[in-house]
Parts: sequence; C-alpha cells; structure tokens
Amino acid sequence: MTRIGVPVPPGFTITTEVCALHGRDPRAAREQLAPALEGALRRLEEEQGRRFGERTDPLLVSVRSGAPVSMPGMMDTVLNVGITPAARSGLAARGGGGESGARFALDCELRLVEMFGDVVRGVPPATFTAPRRRALAAAGVLHARALPVEALEELLAAFRDGYARATGEPFPDDPLVQLHAAIEAVFASWEGGRAVTYRRLHGIPDDLGTAVNVQAMVFGNTGERSATGVCFSRDPATGEPGLYGEYLSDAQGEEVVAGTRTPLPVRRDLAAPTGESFEERFPAAYIELARVGEKLEAHYGDIQDIEFTVEEGRLHILQTRRGQRTGAAALRIACDLVDEGLITPDRAIRQVDPLSLGQLLAPIFDTAGRAAAEPRRLARGLAAGPGGASGRIALDAATAVAWAANGRGPVLLVRDETSPEDIAGMAVAAGILTARGGATSHAAVVARGLGVPCVVGCEALRIDEEERRLSAGGRRLAEGEWLSIDGSSGDVFAGAIETMDSEVLQVIDGALPPAESPAWGRFSRLLSWAGERRRIGVRANADTPLDARRARALGAEGIGLCRTEHMFFGGERLLAFRRMILAGDEAGRRRALAALLPWQRDDFRQILLAMDGLPVTIRLLDPPLHEFLPRGDEEADRFAAEAGIDPRAVRARIEETREANPMLGIRGCRLGLLYPEIIEMQARAVFEAAREARDAGGHPFPEVMVPLVGIPEEALRTRRIIDQVALQVFAGGEPIHYLVGTMIEVPRAALVAGRIAAGLDFFSFGTNDLTQMTFGFSRDDTASLIRHYVDEGILADDPFSTLDRDGVGALIRIAAESGRAANPALELGICGEHGGDPRSVALCRELGLDYVSASPLRVPGARLAAAR
Amino acid sequence: MTRIGVPVPPGFTITTEVCALHGRDPRAAREQLAPALEGALRRLEEEQGRRFGERTDPLLVSVRSGAPVSMPGMMDTVLNVGITPAARSGLAARGGGGESGARFALDCELRLVEMFGDVVRGVPPATFTAPRRRALAAAGVLHARALPVEALEELLAAFRDGYARATGEPFPDDPLVQLHAAIEAVFASWEGGRAVTYRRLHGIPDDLGTAVNVQAMVFGNTGERSATGVCFSRDPATGEPGLYGEYLSDAQGEEVVAGTRTPLPVRRDLAAPTGESFEERFPAAYIELARVGEKLEAHYGDIQDIEFTVEEGRLHILQTRRGQRTGAAALRIACDLVDEGLITPDRAIRQVDPLSLGQLLAPIFDTAGRAAAEPRRLARGLAAGPGGASGRIALDAATAVAWAANGRGPVLLVRDETSPEDIAGMAVAAGILTARGGATSHAAVVARGLGVPCVVGCEALRIDEEERRLSAGGRRLAEGEWLSIDGSSGDVFAGAIETMDSEVLQVIDGALPPAESPAWGRFSRLLSWAGERRRIGVRANADTPLDARRARALGAEGIGLCRTEHMFFGGERLLAFRRMILAGDEAGRRRALAALLPWQRDDFRQILLAMDGLPVTIRLLDPPLHEFLPRGDEEADRFAAEAGIDPRAVRARIEETREANPMLGIRGCRLGLLYPEIIEMQARAVFEAAREARDAGGHPFPEVMVPLVGIPEEALRTRRIIDQVALQVFAGGEPIHYLVGTMIEVPRAALVAGRIAAGLDFFSFGTNDLTQMTFGFSRDDTASLIRHYVDEGILADDPFSTLDRDGVGALIRIAAESGRAANPALELGICGEHGGDPRSVALCRELGLDYVSASPLRVPGARLAAAR
Repeated sequence: MTRIGVPVPPGFTITTEVCALHGRDPRAAREQLAPALEGALRRLEEEQGRRFGERTDPLLVSVRSGAPVSMPGMMDTVLNVGITPAARSGLAARGGGGESGARFALDCELRLVEMFGDVVRGVPPATFTAPRRRALAAAGVLHARALPVEALEELLAAFRDGYARATGEPFPDDPLVQLHAAIEAVFASWEGGRAVTYRRLHGIPDDLGTAVNVQAMVFGNTGERSATGVCFSRDPATGEPGLYGEYLSDAQGEEVVAGTRTPLPVRRDLAAPTGESFEERFPAAYIELARVGEKLEAHYGDIQDIEFTVEEGRLHILQTRRGQRTGAAALRIACDLVDEGLITPDRAIRQVDPLSLGQLLAPIFDTAGRAAAEPRRLARGLAAGPGGASGRIALDAATAVAWAANGRGPVLLVRDETSPEDIAGMAVAAGILTARGGATSHAAVVARGLGVPCVVGCEALRIDEEERRLSAGGRRLAEGEWLSIDGSSGDVFAGAIETMDSEVLQVIDGALPPAESPAWGRFSRLLSWAGERRRIGVRANADTPLDARRARALGAEGIGLCRTEHMFFGGERLLAFRRMILAGDEAGRRRALAALLPWQRDDFRQILLAMDGLPVTIRLLDPPLHEFLPRGDEEADRFAAEAGIDPRAVRARIEETREANPMLGIRGCRLGLLYPEIIEMQARAVFEAAREARDAGGHPFPEVMVPLVGIPEEALRTRRIIDQVALQVFAGGEPIHYLVGTMIEVPRAALVAGRIAAGLDFFSFGTNDLTQMTFGFSRDDTASLIRHYVDEGILADDPFSTLDRDGVGALIRIAAESGRAANPALELGICGEHGGDPRSVALCRELGLDYVSASPLRVPGARLAAAR
Repeated sequence: MTRIGVPVPPGFTITTEVCALHGRDPRAAREQLAPALEGALRRLEEEQGRRFGERTDPLLVSVRSGAPVSMPGMMDTVLNVGITPAARSGLAARGGGGESGARFALDCELRLVEMFGDVVRGVPPATFTAPRRRALAAAGVLHARALPVEALEELLAAFRDGYARATGEPFPDDPLVQLHAAIEAVFASWEGGRAVTYRRLHGIPDDLGTAVNVQAMVFGNTGERSATGVCFSRDPATGEPGLYGEYLSDAQGEEVVAGTRTPLPVRRDLAAPTGESFEERFPAAYIELARVGEKLEAHYGDIQDIEFTVEEGRLHILQTRRGQRTGAAALRIACDLVDEGLITPDRAIRQVDPLSLGQLLAPIFDTAGRAAAEPRRLARGLAAGPGGASGRIALDAATAVAWAANGRGPVLLVRDETSPEDIAGMAVAAGILTARGGATSHAAVVARGLGVPCVVGCEALRIDEEERRLSAGGRRLAEGEWLSIDGSSGDVFAGAIETMDSEVLQVIDGALPPAESPAWGRFSRLLSWAGERRRIGVRANADTPLDARRARALGAEGIGLCRTEHMFFGGERLLAFRRMILAGDEAGRRRALAALLPWQRDDFRQILLAMDGLPVTIRLLDPPLHEFLPRGDEEADRFAAEAGIDPRAVRARIEETREANPMLGIRGCRLGLLYPEIIEMQARAVFEAAREARDAGGHPFPEVMVPLVGIPEEALRTRRIIDQVALQVFAGGEPIHYLVGTMIEVPRAALVAGRIAAGLDFFSFGTNDLTQMTFGFSRDDTASLIRHYVDEGILADDPFSTLDRDGVGALIRIAAESGRAANPALELGICGEHGGDPRSVALCRELGLDYVSASPLRVPGARLAAAR
C-alpha cells in the first residue's frame, strides 16, 4: 500500500519464519529477533521524529497479526504499545492538551492495560468490565469517553490493580517488555482455538504461521475531529458498486466491529435520519477514502475491506484485505470487475468461491409464506447476509453446535453480539441474529463468508440468558422455539416460514423469464466462462426427470449417477417391490418384477430424453433388500394385510434379511447374482426406454453401471446378463449404443481393477462407500468420531467432504492406472458426493479422471472448480 | 506300474489335453482323437491277441478316468466296453463255457448296459434296479449272480428295453460307438457336480482336466476262482503296517467299494469268523499282492490304495493311488517310512497334510462319559474313521447341509451307504454312520480324507427314510435326535457323549507321560523335523495362560495375538467394565478402570510367564462398547438393579452405543482416542505385569498392539500414551524392553503404511477384518453369498479361509514394502485365522512376513506348512 501511495502509518513486518521458529523454540526466536527489532525501531523512530519509550512525545505502536491468508477477527492485536505513566503528560499534549488531552492520554492507557491484559496475559474480561460498569453508573454516563478525568484516573488505578491481582505482578511499564510480549502473544494466537477452528473451516494449512506488523499508532480517539472506521469498496452483501462501511468518531480500533457502540454509515445516502454520515462529517477524508478504495481495487483486482482512522482530520489507512462477500455479491463483483476492465474472465473464475455459488440456488422465503407471516413479525434489524432462514432459537454457540449435531433440525443462533469465540456455532447455524452491531460487525462479516442469512443490530431484541428466552415486539419466545429471519430485508418473525426456489432456479424451471433476472444473467455468464476453461467434465447425480432437466440447465454434461432404487419407493411401486422380495421362488419374483418394469421404463425414458444426446449412467439396484421391507411388527402386519400375505411369512422374511452390518452385506451386484431376474428386469427397462426415446426422435445414450463389484467375475457375469437382454430388446431393429461399467467402491475392486477393466467400458468411483470401506468408517456411526479427529488434528478434513488423498486417492490412482493399462478406452468418473467439493475436483483432475458428478445444485460449483 | 514289473492289464492313455480340447470344442476333439485311438487299439489288439469287436474271442476294455490328482469315486468309469449280443457266446467261452460261462457273459453284458446307460446317457437308476429287484424276488435269490441263465436273459432284455425307452434309441451294439461315447462321458464327468464339489473341498484347480485310461478288461466275475478287491498297503486309519483291504469273489469293479455286498477282509488275521479271507482263498495271489504293495510303496514312497482283480487265480493290478489316511495314520506312516529308509524327513514333511494334524488334537470321547453311555449302546459296526462324534441325526445329505448352515449344532449323517452325491453332506457332518459297506467303502475313504469320525457296515441299523427315523438295538430314534459314534471302536450310542482332550493334548497338559503315548512321540518327531526346516516363524493366538502353555508345547515361538477383551467377560469383571461404559465422566471411568487393572495385570503376568523369553503381542481393547452391554430391556434392568444405577440411564446408554454397522464403528484405537484412560489402564497392566514377571525371575517380552488404525496419527498418538505409561511404571528401575505396533486391518492402513511404520516397531496383519473391509464382506451376513460364489466359480476359495492373493494379498504387499522401506527393522506378522491355513502360510512367506500366528491347536499345522 505504501508503494502505491496510500497513506499508511509507517512500520515494519516480522515474518512468518519467526512465527514458525517461535512455535518450535521460543527462546531462540526471542534471541534472534531482539537485535533486528531494535534496528527496525530505530529506523521507525527516525522517520517519525519520535522515540519509543521517550516521555515528552513518545512513539506508540500497534502490534497486529499479518497472516498470509486473512482470518478476520481470529488473530490478536495489541494497540497503544509503549505507553507508560511517565509519558502520560507528553501524550496528553499530542491529544491537544488540557482536559481533553488528559482524557485522551488516559483513554489510550486504559485501552493498553485492558488489551494487553486480555491478549497477552489472559486476564479475565470482568477484571476490567466490572470497574468500568461501576464508574459509568456512578457518573451516570453511557461511554467511558464521557467520564471526567478524575474518574478515568480512578478507573486506570482499578485496571492496574486488577491486572496485578490477576497476574501476580504489576503491569509492565517498560515499553520494550510490552513490545516483545505483544509480539509473542500474536504469534501464540496462531495456535489459539478460534484461529484453529477458522483454519479448519476454511481449509487453511496449519503450518503457514502469521507475520506481525508493528506500526506507528495513529489516533482516532483524540476527540470529535478524529474517527475510526471500516469500509468495503463495494457492498459485500449485493456487490453493488460504491463505498459501503461504518465509522465511529472519537474511537479506536476494534470498537467499530465489536458492536459495543452502534456505528454510523460512511455514505450519506445510506445514513439513517438520526446519525451523521462520515461523508458529511469528514468530507475531505471521505473523498480521499473513495479514491483509496478505487486505487486498492485497481491494484488488487478485487473488493477491499479497509480499516481506516482519521486523526485530527487526516486520513490513515491501517489495513486492507480481500473483502468477504456473499455468493451473489461475489458473482456481481466478478462480472462488474471484468466489465470495468480491472480483471480478466480467468481471474473472475478464480475469484468466485465455487462453494458460494450454492447460495444462489438455496431456497428463499416463499412469497406467500412471508406475507402470511407478517402478523408474526417481531422487529427489523440490519440486513447483513441475504436469504431467508428458519430455525430453533439457540442462545449460545455451544447449544447451537450440540443441537445441530443431535439432528434437532435447523438452528438459529441469537446473540447480543457475536465474537470470534462463537465461530463454531455460527458455522452450524441456519441463520444468525444479533441485537447489536452494524453491517461490518463480526456477525455480519462471518455470516457473509459462510453464506449464512444474517440480521444484525436488531435493537428491539432483548435476550435473557438466565431465563433462556428472548423478547421483541411484545412477544416472548423460549430457546428451542422457531424463529425466522429475512437476511435481505432485516425482518425477524416468530415461527417458521415456508421456503421456495431461488431466483436462479425459477429461471431454470421457466417460472421467471431470464431477462428479468440480473442474477441469472451473471450466473450464466460466469458458468459459460467456466465451461470454456474447464479441464475435467462435470455430470450430475440425478434420479428424476426434474433433477435431470435442472442439472442440464446448470451445465451438467450428462448424468453420472442415476439411482434406480428411489424409483421403488412409495405407493404401489413399493408394494410390488415388496412382493418381489417376499416371493418364495423365481417365478414369483419374476411376476412381481414384471409389474415394476413399466414404471421403471417410463422413468428411464423421461430421464434419457431430459439428457438427450448426453450420457446417462444408470446404476442397478444397490441397497440391501431389508431397506424396502416394513419396519416394526405393526407395519409388517399392516403390509401383510394389504398384500394378502401371511403376516408370519412377512415377519420371517424381515428377520431373514436382517444384517449385522448392512453396509457390508448382501446388496449391489451380489443381489443381482443371487437373483439374476432383477438385473434382467432393470436392463430390459433401460433398453426398452432407450428404444422408445429413439422412436420419439431422441438420441438416448445409456450407460449401465454395476454397483459393489469387488471380484472381476461379478462384473463380467453381470455384464453377460445385461448384454443378453440388450440382444433380445434390440433384436430385429437397429441396436442403440450403450456402455456397461462398474462402480469402484469396494477397495478390492481398485486392487484388481486391471482384470475388471478388460471386460467393461467405464469405471465410476463411488467415493462415499469407498471412503467408508477404506477407512473402516460407517457414516452412520462415526460422525462424532470424525468431528473429534478433525478438532484434534488427527484428520485434516472430514474424508466424506473432501476426498482423502493418501488412502482413497491412492486406491483411485491404482485403479485408474491399471484400468487404463488394461483398457485404454476406459472412461473414468467419480459419482460420490466429493464431486461437488472443489478441492476434491482438483484431485480428480490430477488423478486423470474424465469427469466428476455432483448433485444438480452443486454442478455449477463443480464446473467452476473444474475451470480453476 | 508296468515299467516296474507290476502285473497291469495292457492299455493306453488319452491325455488331459484332449479333455481340455473336448471342453472347448467337442467335435474337434473327436476328429483329432479318432485316428490316434484306432492306432492305439490296433497295438493293444496285437499285444492281447484278441480283436475289439470280434465275435469269437472279443477284446473288451475298461474306460477309466485318470485325473492328475486322485479324486476317488468322483469320476466316471465304464467297464466291459465292446460287448455285443453277437459276441455273447465267444465271451461265454472265456468264462469257462457251459452254464457258468453263459452266466458270466450275460453278467458282463448286464453290467455294460447298466453302466453305459447310467454314466453315458444318464438313464435313471430305477430303469435297471426295478427289473432286477423283481427278478431276484421271483427267483428267491439275494444277488444277480445266483439267477439262472434264463432269468438273466430276461433281465438283459428288460435292461435293453428300459435303455431304449429312456433314451429313445436302442442300445448301441457297435463297439467303437460305445468306446467313443464312454471316453466322452469320462471327460464330461470332470465338470460333473460331484467332481466340482470335490475339487472345491480339496483345492484342486478346475483347469487340470482328466486323462482317460483304456485298458484290456480282466474279469473278477468268471466264478469262484476269480475275485476283485481294494487294498491299502498299510492301515489307512491307524497307519499300522501290513496289507489292509477287502475283496469279493465272483465280482467286478465297483462292487467292493459300492457297499452293495459287504466284502471280506484281505488278511486272515482281520477276518471275522464268518467269512474266508483273501489270504486263505487265494494264497498265491495274496503273496504276490503283498509283494506288489511293497514294490509300489518303495516306488512311490507312500501308502498305496490298490485296486486288483483275480481272474481264474491270476492277479492283475488295475489301479494304484496315494492312499487317503487319517491324521494319525499320516503321522505314523511318515515316521515309519523314514525309519524304513523309504523316504527322507523332508519328504515326510511334504507327505503329511498340515490340516490333518488337527485330528490328533481334536477332542475324543470322555472316558467316563463313554462308560456311562454303555447302556445306551445301540450297535457296533466297523471302525472306519477314528475319533468320537455326537450330533443330530440327519438321514440325507441335503438335510445335513441345511442344518449345519442353520447352526442347529453338529450333525451326524446316517445312511444305508454313501455315494459320491453325498459328498457335500459328508463334508459338513460331525460324523458319518452307514449300515452297509466295508473299511474301503466310499463312506470310509471319504471320511478318512476329511478327518471325520466314521462307522460303516453297522448291519443292525435299520433306516426308515419315509418315517424319518432309524432303529437299532431295539430302540427308535427320530431324525434330529442325538446320536454318538466312536470311530475307533465302531460303537454307536443313543444320545450325546461328553468329549475330553485328545491323547496328544493330555501329554501336553501333563495328564499322560510322554513315554506312554506313541502318538505324541511321532507328533513331536515330525514337529521337530518341521522346526528345523521352517522358513517363517509361527506364533499362537492365545488369550489365557492355559492356551499359552499349550501353544508353546505345540511349538509356538511366541504369542502373535492376545485379545484383551475376553478378560472383561464374565462375573465381576463384566460388572466393572459396564460401570466404566456407563460412567458419565472421565473420573467415573477411571474409577471403574482402576478396579479392572489388577485382574488384567494378573492375566498378563501369567501369560508372559507361560511364554517366558518369547514375545507376547497384546492387543488393546478392540470391540465396540455395546458388545459388553446387556442385551434386551430385561437384562438391562437386571443389570441396573445389580449395579445400583438408574435403569433409564442404562437403557439410554445402550441406545446411544447402538451402531448401524458396528464393524465400521467406534472401536479399537478409536475408542482409546476418545477415552485415553482405557489405553492408560491397559498399558499400565501390561507393564506392571512385565515388572512382576521379571521380579519373579522371568524374561517377559511384551509387544503392545494398537488395533484398527487407519490414520498414522492414530497410531502415533496411541503410542505416545503407551510410552508415557511405560516411563511412569519403569521410573526408578531398569526398564523392560517392549515394542509398540499396530494391526493392519483397515485398508487405508496398508495404503499409508510407510507413514505408520516410521513411528512403530511392528505390523501385524489382522486379515479377518482386512478381508471384510477389502471385499466389503461382513462375515456375519455373507456366509451364504460366499458359498454361492464358490459354488458358481465366482470365487475360487472362501477368502476367510484362504488368504485372497489378488486383493488382500496386494494390500499386504504394499504395506510390507512401504513399511520396511520406512523402517527396515519393522517386524511383520499375521494374526488373522489365515495363519492356520497352509496355503495362506505359503503366501505369507512369499510376501516376506516374519511370522504367522494361529490358534494353539492349529500351530502344529502352521509349523508344518512353514517347513513345506
């Protein structure tokens, strides 16, 4: 920033190498750092014309983290380092002298003792908040800056006493001691729980470490001609151009984002009638700030999140970083920056987080449902993260985490204000609501990063943590009751509200003309850039014609996984399927299967036509039979009565199909080899559907996939049955081209892949099951264990979310290499849920796969990842 | 045999290549075979001075299978090929002319039509048995050879009529047509169900194919100066030297082994008072037979199973093969042959089937129990397969198979006589009892091969297949009731009889002085030969001091797997363990664990001392917690009352620990990382036990094994806890050397083995679980599927019995190679049940493992396999 002419207070940086050394050997780090630090301080003193530790006009510094990847609010900062009681009067002179100067100097010293105590020595917050509350009450004022000098002096004495009591030693009045301790505290905060959680959530490596920036202090708290603020170069919620931020006059550092005082807007046109905007109060600084924003955006090619301070009317930029933004904003900003000539489409693709595209496809409040909820509206706050969310009220992060883990349904985190300690709860919440704080408060920033709907600064909200309830608009709701927030309007409602399709999905389904949706325009523009650049194919996992149509509109190049078992659930189909399971012999099974054939053929025809001309991978029946049988004696007897079967036979068959470990039981191709008539029926349905689709003028391209193969002979025998049926169906007519392949989801299949590949046309890696069997992790049973492992650093990621490179990835590599060696034409894809995860997509590309397959709404993200 | 001067009827052999070609392309095989066959026939005719198809003195031939590996009774044979009605009088002349000659010629022709019909054309047996039964009844005689000529002629006409009716064409009276058809039928019998089942049971490859031997017929059915018999060169049940066999005069081929007429013994001293022995009736032929036996034994270096025929006083040897024998006989024969200088100890080791050694360790009838059963003795038959067996009566093979599969307990197969169709039922039976047949009957031979106790020829036994019951000794027993047989004495008892340790185990446990047990002498002699030659170490899987002592006496070089969880089952221990599971917090768990510590320490000390100086691999807790909890509400409530805990808490905890797929759930090291105090207690028990063992003068060598590792960090963190405990326990004293290693049983562990090995001392492949996860086969759920797969040839072997080379073996290879590369000192072993399977032992050696580990009673077999 200094180099491009932005007004930054001078300073120097201690690199991440020192952080790493500090982690291994703190003493060595201290010894090596000391002389370099001394030299850097000397140069800073010369430039500022002030000396560190000097009394009449002391140089004060801020000590801030500087991690390679921004982790807003997660790392520690200590301001005002270098103050001592001896220099108090000298500092007061800088604050304009007189009573105002004295109050400024005392304010700085109070901030140092509190911040240093908290960050460096872990002194409990109440040590400082309790005496302050008492002082404010005694003086009858709302904020400390309104206290008289004497009260501030008494408060300072109380702070220093409290510090000494809590730590067992007096506050260090040696500026160099303060500086070293602050630097080490920033290093240490890299390993703090908040920072570690944040890194896990955002996939930031643990060994990067943080740098430390030591800068000359500038003061936003010298009085009404000074201020401090935070400002985005564009609106981070919508992407709309123009400065978007907040400030507080006579304030310092964290105050704006901490939510303790509700700040005022930067721009005049966004100001509420009650407060004065920065633009009005500091017109010259505002113009300079706007110029700085443009300069920084041009330099970094992205939206900036800028921290600034005005000292006696003069603007200083303290920090800038990439701005967190919602998915909608990311999309708009990327398109706008391309149009403004600031970035290329390549850069735009890299700038939009593939996962954030999902936000444009997430459900929004149903229009009618929202209208009906109007009588239940409790209050309105600031719209800080768009989207609608309903959930059970949770009044702290721990409760939110526990309820989310227990599957108690969506949770809405409701807090006075959030702090970095709440990060885990925010990550699992369906929505976030705070009573205080502005559009750049911690809650708002984190919510946008996570893509979680958020309303902040809802001042009508009263939270009673003791009684575990909240009140607003004259109503009371207990923790656990339902609440809804509209993060686009700021409205808060009692109860739940129905959701509907997002704008983009409405366009796709034809409910909204494309021209009426700017979001759709940008969405399709980005996807077409991605399509031109993608380096691995993207298909969809789709089981219904609707899903297939949507997936195609979202850019899918085919279906990678069509699960046929879903077609057997529900109503008459389930009844017929159960008859098949309960049949005592092959003839009975064949009769029941014949009844199922027309339904399945009809489904297949519609899906093939929805994906006309593109491949559709249809997986044969996969789950164990007992999943289709009634659960419990009561349901069994009801079914028996309905189907006219002896209830004892039904119960006996249920007992017979019960498995100790169904995941490793009789399912997939094993079922088909025990009851080949099932394969025959499904293959017939596929080929007859393809014939009908062709007769209707289509170009169907079915790929039949055999699940759970572990032995080459399983795949080859199943293929023989399938080919036999194809011969019969296409007899006397033009045959339709089709492929037969297998899922690779049993570890052994990967190990003997060469012999499987020789007789088949494609492999599709079923990475859900492959991960289960490779790790020996049942998804149903080990969710809490995996969370524990990730928290403890035993696993870097949940292997069900991000493909495991070392284990599962190694098997995929073995299978891909030996499969291609045996059959160079072999088509390779992945159909597990990993297909929608950007890092997993990158690994698939590295492993040489031809395509990934993801659920329809994750297709755009996968396509974007494929282009990155 | 011809080359070494044994009197064999001349003939020629059609090789297995022709069989293979016949399997692929029968017509080509036929075309290529025809000219060669003609040439060979010409040479045979010249040598015999008789012509095939000639009328006055026709050459007849037998057509027998000649598989590379003997499969007694499984393959087809056709005798008397070449007879036509036109040659009947010529043949009668060979039979001595007159009425006797006519009956001989008719007998041969009857045999040909019946055998050809059955073997070549699949004519139903009743086509022949029904008219024969009628003819016998009409004449009032017991056997066909007693029928008058006219009756035989009528019977032959009925046979030929029946043949024509069943096949739709007349019996082929063209000798060449008969010959070609018989050859092809023998080829086809290679693919017959019986032969396929036998190959599966004995691990014989399917693609070997069979040769066909065409030999000039010699006739044991020309009258009382002729005979046919089967004879072992030693006693196949005990190994005692001397001919052991049976014969029938005026008989042919299968009759002796078929059990239709009860044959007489070969040796005089084994003859019952009622019958004349071969030695007495044919003294010269007997002397020659004894000489042939010695010559063949000297040539083949093994016990022989010889088929012979005497035609008019002259001995002919039709066939010889390796004799099937019991484990005890195998051991005695091997030792005797070494002592006789016929074979070397190397050869002896190769000659004893490692699996058969288990028979010497199998329980025998308890002496007191057998005495007490005396009043329940029903009958006595021939002792044909030693050992005692009790089981539920099953009157046919299908029932035996079904009951064995359903876990209805041991099954005793009871039949009039067995035939090759019964092989599957015999394989699952605990014992076999037949009403007819001698010591070389099908039942006896197969039972000895399988090592199943067997009593044959129990003539007092009456079986009523209609009423599904049997009677003997004036008592009736229904199918499903318990019956016991003593295969060493021939006694049959109603009800079950308690078993006791075998002679060898009695010696090991000190209950019998070694000098009093010749079996033990031979057993230890073979094991010491094996020990000198073994090429891979053998340890035992042992959980108790008794098992450890036995295993050591049986040659184990340490314990490869000591399962600690068994120590928690039963009585107070289980109560304490349940308290641990139910504790709400760590403190509660620690209290419960402290109560368990002394028990576990005591167990470990005894096991370490039993294996003093040898390594003892102790596995940390492996199963999921719910395996220890009460099952069902009733048991839960009883436990709650006993333990003084709220029953709702117990039920809730049971619900909480329930898993959808426990095999892939929270167990093994996962439990230990969630509750490190469990690891700490177990490690403390191990190290304190080792300290006590050393203080008692011992040399304990514990190896602590971490189960279910899939992630390097799991192993390393667990090791840190273990090392920490060792430091504490050995503080202030001399530390005891120990190793820490891991089971490789999760596929991922094999894939990341290099990174695991770097921090550990050993790997032990837990091939049971590794097989489950590599195949995705739950042992509890897929037994029937695996049987189906083996029957259908989808799998060559049950991978839980024989280590899967391609899949599981590939993972072991990856793990062994990358593990050794990362840590050259890494010790490698296997502790799954495969350690007791000879073929798996060979694979382990090939994969470079240091040792296998098997259950104590399988240690001798593993040791033998290790030497082979």
